[in-house]
Amino acid sequence: MKLIILGCYSATPRAFTNPTSQVLDIQNHLFLIDCGEGTQVQLRKHRIKFARIRHIFISHLHGDHFFGLPGLISTLVLLGREAPLHVYGPKGIKEAITLLLKLGNSWTNFPLVFHELSSREPQLVFEDEKVEVHTIPLDHRVYTNGYLFREKPGPRKLDIDAVLRYNIDRCYYRNIKNGRDVLLDTGEWISNEKLTSDPPVPGSYAFCSDTVYKPGIIGQLKGVGVLYHESTFLEEHKDLAVKTKHSTAKQAAEIAAGAGAGKLILGHYSVRYGNLEVFREEARTVFPDTELAEDGKVFDF
Amino acid sequence: MKLIILGCYSATPRAFTNPTSQVLDIQNHLFLIDCGEGTQVQLRKHRIKFARIRHIFISHLHGDHFFGLPGLISTLVLLGREAPLHVYGPKGIKEAITLLLKLGNSWTNFPLVFHELSSREPQLVFEDEKVEVHTIPLDHRVYTNGYLFREKPGPRKLDIDAVLRYNIDRCYYRNIKNGRDVLLDTGEWISNEKLTSDPPVPGSYAFCSDTVYKPGIIGQLKGVGVLYHESTFLEEHKDLAVKTKHSTAKQAAEIAAGAGAGKLILGHYSVRYGNLEVFREEARTVFPDTELAEDGKVFDF
Repeated sequence: MKLIILGCYSATPRAFTNPTSQVLDIQNHLFLIDCGEGTQVQLRKHRIKFARIRHIFISHLHGDHFFGLPGLISTLVLLGREAPLHVYGPKGIKEAITLLLKLGNSWTNFPLVFHELSSREPQLVFEDEKVEVHTIPLDHRVYTNGYLFREKPGPRKLDIDAVLRYNIDRCYYRNIKNGRDVLLDTGEWISNEKLTSDPPVPGSYAFCSDTVYKPGIIGQLKGVGVLYHESTFLEEHKDLAVKTKHSTAKQAAEIAAGAGAGKLILGHYSVRYGNLEVFREEARTVFPDTELAEDGKVFDF
Repeated sequence: MKLIILGCYSATPRAFTNPTSQVLDIQNHLFLIDCGEGTQVQLRKHRIKFARIRHIFISHLHGDHFFGLPGLISTLVLLGREAPLHVYGPKGIKEAITLLLKLGNSWTNFPLVFHELSSREPQLVFEDEKVEVHTIPLDHRVYTNGYLFREKPGPRKLDIDAVLRYNIDRCYYRNIKNGRDVLLDTGEWISNEKLTSDPPVPGSYAFCSDTVYKPGIIGQLKGVGVLYHESTFLEEHKDLAVKTKHSTAKQAAEIAAGAGAGKLILGHYSVRYGNLEVFREEARTVFPDTELAEDGKVFDF
């Protein structure tokens, strides 16, 4: 899994800071998460092939999380895209995009499929053989979802030495990887655990932005590999966080600690703070394995 | 008058090219003309005070001319703007912006006044003591207007030597500047032309983008000081220009020559051409005083 931060600042785009957008490279998918103004330029700067993006997940309909979407879709039209594009986001997103395209007297020559969300409970919104994506209902000034991306467990790892030792035919390998025991010609049963080891732990990534401190999501996030959690403010401005329904760095760390996350990535910084390091310092008092998102930064995990 | 080019490329924003937007600094107004995605960042880069923009003129509702507007307006909300903002543009622009603000559960705390356009004839859309702005109906794939900005003639220039020679009281100066003759105490009439000279020729600027070659606009542009005219293509791709309702550099020059413009500025280039100089060369075969718009360039005239 690879996470590319295209933008991680709150509010409006500036000369050197971009509003929220990121790309999750997972099991051959390039999932685009949020799409603030300027996202298509950031995609170009990072040489990400537009054609590889087939699913876009929008958290909520504040401009700094989706005003780049109409332009990105218009660009896909100009590029002659034919493959379907799936857009997941709050109810209303379809009307907005449709109206903007209609006003420009244009429409997509590719299927543009909207998956409008309105549930307050976690929902499975995408699934294939290797990945599933659930919403994480958040609490912000407008209807907002985070997204939880989970790899499915892969097949068990074949112990080549063992299968050769038992002289097992290749045609059984697939079944063995899927956990089956084997009956030898001698009539002896060989248990699966003698022939395989556990597959790698499936990766998972949770994107939680924007939201007020919401410990209610911890249950859903238990054991998550990497958690991106907004930290618009520091504790010194906790009152502002409550008022605007955002979180502090320490609160983000408390969510990460409660969930037993492998790693915490902070982002969605207010530009009032000069130095991002203060966010990490505050979070590390609660959750040591904290990293800072920065525009253009790539996380491999 | 000063013209600041924030973006002058056609189609979509790229890492180093911006879609259409420009600022005209005229008689203490900062008029924003078109607002492609990324315009607010370009405004910041050029240190243009958002508060000074009170009038925004949108030519048409293709994304590369107005997808930066929702974000700019949202930023003005965050900045706590109180002064009214006037937006001129095709019918539909109000519905689009209103819907986007509504979806974000926000509204402006300043008066946001839409002046929706649908006429196919030139219209006076703005006027104060010093400037007037007319639409220039263009012909593109959607309803489109250019804009003609005209300074009003100032008062006549007082010839101080002459008024002193005739011993004319200061209280008459204002009337004299406004063209009145003066009756001396001796009963002698002094004609205005003995006391004044002509004021500076009022400046004018015409913005014409996007449009197919439309000689019908020449009448309205007669004697214009500076003409910005789109030149998406070169003559070698004239067929594409006709098909997509754009102009070539040579056609832009023909409009400038026909109107007897003082200067032609080209822009809205297709990115298919590596070197902008080819546009100027082509236009100069018809109209020598041709300049190239470039992102970030400032024209003083």
